[in-house]
Amino acid sequence: MKRIGMLTSGGDCQALNAAMRGVVKGLSANLDELEVYGFADGYKGLIYGNYRMLTSKDFSGILTKGGTILGSSRQPFKMMRVPDENGLDKVEAMKQNYYKLRLDCLVILGGNGTQKTANLLREEGLNIIHLPKTIDNDIWGTDMTFGFQSAVNIATDAIDCIHTTAASHNRVFIVEVMGHKVGWLTLHAGIAGGADIILIPEIPYDIDKVVEAIEKRTKAGKGFTILAVAEGAISKEDAKLSKKELKEKMKNYSYPSVSYELADEILKRTGTEIRITVPGHTQRGGTPCPYDRVLSSRLGASAAKLILDNDYGYMVGIVNNKVKKVPLGEVAGKLKMVSPDDQIIQEAKLMGLSFGD
Amino acid sequence: MKRIGMLTSGGDCQALNAAMRGVVKGLSANLDELEVYGFADGYKGLIYGNYRMLTSKDFSGILTKGGTILGSSRQPFKMMRVPDENGLDKVEAMKQNYYKLRLDCLVILGGNGTQKTANLLREEGLNIIHLPKTIDNDIWGTDMTFGFQSAVNIATDAIDCIHTTAASHNRVFIVEVMGHKVGWLTLHAGIAGGADIILIPEIPYDIDKVVEAIEKRTKAGKGFTILAVAEGAISKEDAKLSKKELKEKMKNYSYPSVSYELADEILKRTGTEIRITVPGHTQRGGTPCPYDRVLSSRLGASAAKLILDNDYGYMVGIVNNKVKKVPLGEVAGKLKMVSPDDQIIQEAKLMGLSFGD
Amino acid sequence: MKRIGMLTSGGDCQALNAAMRGVVKGLSANLDELEVYGFADGYKGLIYGNYRMLTSKDFSGILTKGGTILGSSRQPFKMMRVPDENGLDKVEAMKQNYYKLRLDCLVILGGNGTQKTANLLREEGLNIIHLPKTIDNDIWGTDMTFGFQSAVNIATDAIDCIHTTAASHNRVFIVEVMGHKVGWLTLHAGIAGGADIILIPEIPYDIDKVVEAIEKRTKAGKGFTILAVAEGAISKEDAKLSKKELKEKMKNYSYPSVSYELADEILKRTGTEIRITVPGHTQRGGTPCPYDRVLSSRLGASAAKLILDNDYGYMVGIVNNKVKKVPLGEVAGKLKMVSPDDQIIQEAKLMGLSFGD
Amino acid sequence: MKRIGMLTSGGDCQALNAAMRGVVKGLSANLDELEVYGFADGYKGLIYGNYRMLTSKDFSGILTKGGTILGSSRQPFKMMRVPDENGLDKVEAMKQNYYKLRLDCLVILGGNGTQKTANLLREEGLNIIHLPKTIDNDIWGTDMTFGFQSAVNIATDAIDCIHTTAASHNRVFIVEVMGHKVGWLTLHAGIAGGADIILIPEIPYDIDKVVEAIEKRTKAGKGFTILAVAEGAISKEDAKLSKKELKEKMKNYSYPSVSYELADEILKRTGTEIRITVPGHTQRGGTPCPYDRVLSSRLGASAAKLILDNDYGYMVGIVNNKVKKVPLGEVAGKLKMVSPDDQIIQEAKLMGLSFGD
Repeated sequence: MKRIGMLTSGGDCQALNAAMRGVVKGLSANLDELEVYGFADGYKGLIYGNYRMLTSKDFSGILTKGGTILGSSRQPFKMMRVPDENGLDKVEAMKQNYYKLRLDCLVILGGNGTQKTANLLREEGLNIIHLPKTIDNDIWGTDMTFGFQSAVNIATDAIDCIHTTAASHNRVFIVEVMGHKVGWLTLHAGIAGGADIILIPEIPYDIDKVVEAIEKRTKAGKGFTILAVAEGAISKEDAKLSKKELKEKMKNYSYPSVSYELADEILKRTGTEIRITVPGHTQRGGTPCPYDRVLSSRLGASAAKLILDNDYGYMVGIVNNKVKKVPLGEVAGKLKMVSPDDQIIQEAKLMGLSFGD
Repeated sequence: MKRIGMLTSGGDCQALNAAMRGVVKGLSANLDELEVYGFADGYKGLIYGNYRMLTSKDFSGILTKGGTILGSSRQPFKMMRVPDENGLDKVEAMKQNYYKLRLDCLVILGGNGTQKTANLLREEGLNIIHLPKTIDNDIWGTDMTFGFQSAVNIATDAIDCIHTTAASHNRVFIVEVMGHKVGWLTLHAGIAGGADIILIPEIPYDIDKVVEAIEKRTKAGKGFTILAVAEGAISKEDAKLSKKELKEKMKNYSYPSVSYELADEILKRTGTEIRITVPGHTQRGGTPCPYDRVLSSRLGASAAKLILDNDYGYMVGIVNNKVKKVPLGEVAGKLKMVSPDDQIIQEAKLMGLSFGD
Repeated sequence: MKRIGMLTSGGDCQALNAAMRGVVKGLSANLDELEVYGFADGYKGLIYGNYRMLTSKDFSGILTKGGTILGSSRQPFKMMRVPDENGLDKVEAMKQNYYKLRLDCLVILGGNGTQKTANLLREEGLNIIHLPKTIDNDIWGTDMTFGFQSAVNIATDAIDCIHTTAASHNRVFIVEVMGHKVGWLTLHAGIAGGADIILIPEIPYDIDKVVEAIEKRTKAGKGFTILAVAEGAISKEDAKLSKKELKEKMKNYSYPSVSYELADEILKRTGTEIRITVPGHTQRGGTPCPYDRVLSSRLGASAAKLILDNDYGYMVGIVNNKVKKVPLGEVAGKLKMVSPDDQIIQEAKLMGLSFGD
Repeated sequence: MKRIGMLTSGGDCQALNAAMRGVVKGLSANLDELEVYGFADGYKGLIYGNYRMLTSKDFSGILTKGGTILGSSRQPFKMMRVPDENGLDKVEAMKQNYYKLRLDCLVILGGNGTQKTANLLREEGLNIIHLPKTIDNDIWGTDMTFGFQSAVNIATDAIDCIHTTAASHNRVFIVEVMGHKVGWLTLHAGIAGGADIILIPEIPYDIDKVVEAIEKRTKAGKGFTILAVAEGAISKEDAKLSKKELKEKMKNYSYPSVSYELADEILKRTGTEIRITVPGHTQRGGTPCPYDRVLSSRLGASAAKLILDNDYGYMVGIVNNKVKKVPLGEVAGKLKMVSPDDQIIQEAKLMGLSFGD
């Protein structure tokens, strides 16, 4: 007999439901009795005691369903220690709800921010298992997060669609790809979609090099150019600014996003009008791809194994193709970024792709 | 023996290649000799004599290929009678190239603007067949244009993806759908994607009604709302403005597109932050869907039949499920719009969808 | 206030749920009170009183869901008048359950067989609305059934996949397409997939003509050939047999399906080994395509309108792009087949496609 | 300046073109002069000197194209040492063509069989680079082959489609998945598709355990069951037979494939009729998925790096997320199979999936 709580926090992504199904299938196949409490809208549900008991029926047919059946919300880590408007101590409230329901364990699905609060709850003495979800793939301690490959598929679809129209009209197109402050999503979608130029936060771009790469294609008789640009891409100049200076600059920033600024700069230098496509939130929606369904099911099942073994305090990740438990304290708060020296970057450069550096 | 010219003009869309393949398969299966001249980049290729001879190999394997193997460009109708920077009379130049190549017929694939120039060339004595391509489905004289259903699929995919994230986060989302000045694409994608509110140019919206519709959902306990908004959607106030007044207003317009203005207005009235997704050019790219491949192949084959019969001067469309030749002079310049009285609008309203009117 | 019953009968297909959602959205948006009874597994549920009351929550999120939330089963029309093993009069039982629940109307979703029983119930005095679902598109009185276009997409996907491998290996491939006794599905998927030879029940094939078409391609230097063969395709010889003779022949039939027989015949004549792919039941599964979602929503909404108007006894179909009510008595039992003279057949032949005739 | 030859051998799969594009982009971006000779239809082209020179244009736009632009054929390794019908020594012929064209290197894309011949050519003194393609993922020395994930997607799509119809009709369905003699493809597609029972060659099945698993679901009130069965699945009894005995048994084997035998056995034991779906060759066709495009591009680029470094005699694989050169002599002839002890098997079992053991 186990009593577990479950919540999904932060921006939703594909395969959240598949992961939860994995946990519950793993537990219910091995326990005579199981009680699962689902907290609504992330930590909010845990703080305010908003939950419902879930049966195996709730987890039937959700393997392919996008989003999260529990709902989600962003609850910034730095606000966790700050009482709410009614003076409620959030951490205490979460602990109380945990103990009131006599939970054996709390399974928390989320990204970097979520992980930090999960670790805080672990430090406060709760039994925690964390499952790494995010389309950004920026979680330290796991080679891969679920949601990432599904998002790569959607972003690549967008580039594929742009490819035919760019080629037909001899145009320069920017496809702006999500990924928060890291470049994994843009890097993979860019290579998969056959982009010519890939700009990611980890490799600040030199606008002159970007223009050079476009013009090199034109000279080679290639009528169109596709840029895959991360939402977090940054110019060499801006990368040199301090956080404060950057904040100051952003005050008067008139562009909806970096792609518009970039397009403007290219226009100024070349006279070429650039088209911009921003797939936006679609990248984290819809049915999870088979890769993510397998990954999330495996991680979920392995989480169930840990719970069955009363072995708590971990993120369950995948390292070198093996599912591994990673102590939460070791990973919380760390960001996994692309390195300019990564093999995949070198390979892409060898193929003639420009990173604007 | 026939000698035909071919060009694709205006914004590209799916199934242009499939349609051309249909024409060429239809001709080459029924002629001992066939010469096909493909003009590059729309009317530009015809004006400046930029063409290449195409063989059946060029048309092999392109049934599923997006874009156009000929390239395309926009050549506004109203500029056709204006000489170019070197004083070249464009219409005369097109006629000369037509006669120089001793063409039996010119097959022109394009939308509304393209059609007007096609009709002008017909009036000038050339043998013309026009095939109606556009994702907007706004061509008079045909129930359906190829490209439309493929674009519906892409726009619906976007709404599907937004659906899971909107539901998980209890958010209000706008998906901005293409369609130029008509609402067909938004209407179909909106219904297919299960949007709650659909705004199209033909039914100017009342911002208060839009807000009402959102609040009605909130009151009914539905945490999220999805608006499918046509890029050409317009408010009741703006719809009352004269062309000149509208132009004046747009001078100081600071929004990237109508969705941003709408989101701002809703925010002002409700305090609810609205997310916006703009699939943009992806809607006209990528592999044509089976529906469009069948439609374009049929229209292409029927165009071939007309050429074999030396019967020129038509657009080949589909009316009540039958492929029909429609005299170009009868359709050129006319726009097919949604009517607020259309059955499909009434059906959608009966289901509780709001059109903001 | 209305009380309606609902059932889905016969082989399932895409957009059944979307159609039911259309009915319920249409009714609940216009009625203060509505009770919906869903009968399980088709007529079986109605016969044996196996039903549950459905709320609007049951219809939320099912627009994109394949299959039927009610379950389905085949209940042959000719067995309806035959008592069951316990002597139960099925028709009487259905009527009793209808009256016991004091239904205003029974909405029945199904194909040809379903329609006949629906009409029988109408003749027995029940208020019936029928919605035409089937991937076969063989229902008289409507230009299109929902499920058809989704199935075309899946069958075309299969042909697309086969295309790349056939071309790479210079092979002859048969893709066997569903469609019961009619050729609509094969015809559309065959054209959309770029098949070279299309065999459908309505045009019995001459094996020598089929072989000729393959050899013609080989001679023209085209290394591969793709045949789209309807599961109901029949040879000229077999088409001449009486029903009894055909039954006799089938007794010793050793082929799993017609494609295997055909492949064997081609092998005997040409020495060429033929690969066979049978997508089978996948063709009726999965998420409905946007086209089917729009069609089924429209038909569902129009059914709701009829119910609101107390206007019963119809199938709701689509004719020349207009949704129409068609008296059930006029259509029940009629099959809509492809005609060899259909425009689309002529167009395909003009393009050089062989129908083996 | 480099002169390289290229061939694709064995059954085709997705991303062959993408891999070749990777090699050529990697070389042409770093060499002033490059000559690429493409041999037609695998080793056949090399044996009989059937090749053509390829330009960068041949590799443009093929990133997303299924199949192989070079054509492929199966040339069994064991026949390589046997002269052809005209007495031609095949190995000598291949060497002569290699030397006649003064190739610096031969890039060979293929699976296990292909690899053995590639290694033979290496032993004969030719410079060889091998790229591991196969939907089976059974190549020793690389964690992943390209083609695999695309095939997983197609097989999973099939299971997804079957899911909705199985659930609607309460049926037991077998989906037969490719994979040759190993279970990777079935294992991944089975988990991704939510199959209840997975049968793979590496875990011979006990028919009684399979029946038990089906009946357990029925007892638990789950109306349908889905079996993902590898084409190479084998019963415990058959697995005990010697190669000779198995051959003997197969002489009178009347089933088209293992699924039909299995369905028959289940029918005999339970009276339940089983539906069978065989996606077949579709699993290796169509557009490569983004994952495979990235993998194959990386492997291709790394192959180019080796060629630029004059470092030959390797397969280029991926091990623990790093692209690695693996000496051909160490891997040729070895098969990578699923182990019953693999973590993923344990995880699946924990979730209650049955492997029939």
